[in-house]
Amino acid sequence: MPQFMDVHHGMKGLTADQLKETHKADLAIEKEEGVHFEKAWADPESGTVYCLSEAPSAEAVQRIHERAGHRADEIHPVPLTV
Amino acid sequence: MPQFMDVHHGMKGLTADQLKETHKADLAIEKEEGVHFEKAWADPESGTVYCLSEAPSAEAVQRIHERAGHRADEIHPVPLTV
Repeated sequence: MPQFMDVHHGMKGLTADQLKETHKADLAIEKEEGVHFEKAWADPESGTVYCLSEAPSAEAVQRIHERAGHRADEIHPVPLTV
Repeated sequence: MPQFMDVHHGMKGLTADQLKETHKADLAIEKEEGVHFEKAWADPESGTVYCLSEAPSAEAVQRIHERAGHRADEIHPVPLTV
């Protein structure tokens, strides 16, 4: 299944608990679109969050993020990894 | 050790082999700055590369990337993960 890296901006001041809660909100509904959010990394100072997922499409990733209340600003397929 | 996510733009058309080579160039000298590049993901269509590392500082990450011939456009500490 293709992998995607999506990016959220404007999350300045995000706490560890908030990151956990938003991730949980994604996980709770991800199966409905065949998506799996594997991992997320956050820089609360610049307000940037990176999410790595496996999904059938970028649109499926966005639909889950939107329904969970946090639309991604960018979603990139990442077919190459090392 | 702190984790960092750095981003490279302008890598359109990057191949799997090129990603492997550039990553190898980082790994070859990373210890000199106490850095370890754990993983990288690339989107050759938009030309975006994300690198995850453990390092003493963002400056140390940049020094390795520069010496290996590929300066990062952004380097974010990512103290929060999930």
